[in-house]
Amino acid sequence: MADFKNLTETKTASEEIFNGRILHLYRDTVTLPNGHSTTRETIRHVGAVAVVALNDANEVIVERQYRYPVDAVITEIPAGKLDSKTEDRLAAAKRELAEETGYTADEWISLGDYYPAAAYCDERITMYLARGLHRGEQKLDEDEFLNFSFVKLSDLVDEILSGRVTDGKTQAAVLKACLLLKND
Amino acid sequence: MADFKNLTETKTASEEIFNGRILHLYRDTVTLPNGHSTTRETIRHVGAVAVVALNDANEVIVERQYRYPVDAVITEIPAGKLDSKTEDRLAAAKRELAEETGYTADEWISLGDYYPAAAYCDERITMYLARGLHRGEQKLDEDEFLNFSFVKLSDLVDEILSGRVTDGKTQAAVLKACLLLKND
Repeated sequence: MADFKNLTETKTASEEIFNGRILHLYRDTVTLPNGHSTTRETIRHVGAVAVVALNDANEVIVERQYRYPVDAVITEIPAGKLDSKTEDRLAAAKRELAEETGYTADEWISLGDYYPAAAYCDERITMYLARGLHRGEQKLDEDEFLNFSFVKLSDLVDEILSGRVTDGKTQAAVLKACLLLKND
Repeated sequence: MADFKNLTETKTASEEIFNGRILHLYRDTVTLPNGHSTTRETIRHVGAVAVVALNDANEVIVERQYRYPVDAVITEIPAGKLDSKTEDRLAAAKRELAEETGYTADEWISLGDYYPAAAYCDERITMYLARGLHRGEQKLDEDEFLNFSFVKLSDLVDEILSGRVTDGKTQAAVLKACLLLKND
C-alpha cells in the first residue's frame, strides 16, 4: 500500500465555464501531490436538504417526480435546494417539506450530510428524520409537478434493498433512519 | 393532493455548453406538463461502479482520497468511471477494484443502481458486493492518489450512522450490504 502523507491538491488557476440557474461550472487547474498539473471540472451547487418524514403509523412520505436527466419518473423523499449558501439547513428542510407535501413536524433529527458526487460537485445534502407530522396544504411552485403518498417504512426499505428505488439520497437517508430507529 | 397523470417533460431544444474530460454539460429547453417552457441544465456522465469488498473477517475495503470540489480527504468504497457508455458494468467493477486495491473476488453480487443527482446529472452508479477476496498488486494511474485499508463492516456502519462518512454512494452501498447480509 502506497503511503501518501499529503493527498491534497492545490489550485493554480480557475476558469468559469458556465453560470446557470442551478449549476455553476468551473474548470480549475491544480497541482497534484506528485507535482504534476491537471484540470478539475467542478460543479458549484448551493446545497440541499432531504427529509424522511415518518408518521405515527411508521409510514414515510415518498414523492413520484419526473427527472429530466434520467428521463424517468422516480421515487424520492421530499428534498430541495437551499435558497442561498448561508440559509439555515433545518429551516430549509421545514420549508421544503411544507411546500412539497403540506406537512409540518414536531421533531427534527439530523441524519448527517451526504455528498452525492464529491468527485465533480460540491453539493452537500443535509438529511433529516421528521416525526410527529401535522397535515397542511401543499404549495408547489407553478412549474413543479410531483405526487406524494405514504408508504410503510419497512416496505420502502424492501424496495430499496431489491433495487427498485434508484435515487441515491433516498437510499442513504431511509436506510440510515431505519437502522437508527432499530437501535433506539 | 394534485393528480398529474403525465409528469413527463418533452425536449424542444438542446444547447451544448461544455464537453470536458468528465462532464458534458447541456442546457436543454423542455415543455412541462402544464405546457410552460423551461430550461434544464443537465450533466451527461459516462456512468460508474462502486464496490463493497468484504473479506472473510467481515472487513470492508475503504479508501481515503482527496476530493477537490469539497476540499477534503474523504472515506469512500472503491469506485470508478466506466471506460465507455457501453462497457459491461461488472467488468468495470472488477477492473476498478483490482486497479485501486489489487484485490480480486470470487463472488460478485449486484447491490442495484444509484443515481447520485438525478435532478441535474444522468450518472448511474451500479453497486456491487464482492466476497472471497484475493490479494494482488495495486495499479494506480500515475496521477491517482489514494490510501486504502480494511475496517470492520460493523464499525463502518457505525461511522455512517454517526455522520462521519459523508460520501453518498458509500453510505447507500454499505448500508444496503449490511441489511442484505443480515437478511441472509
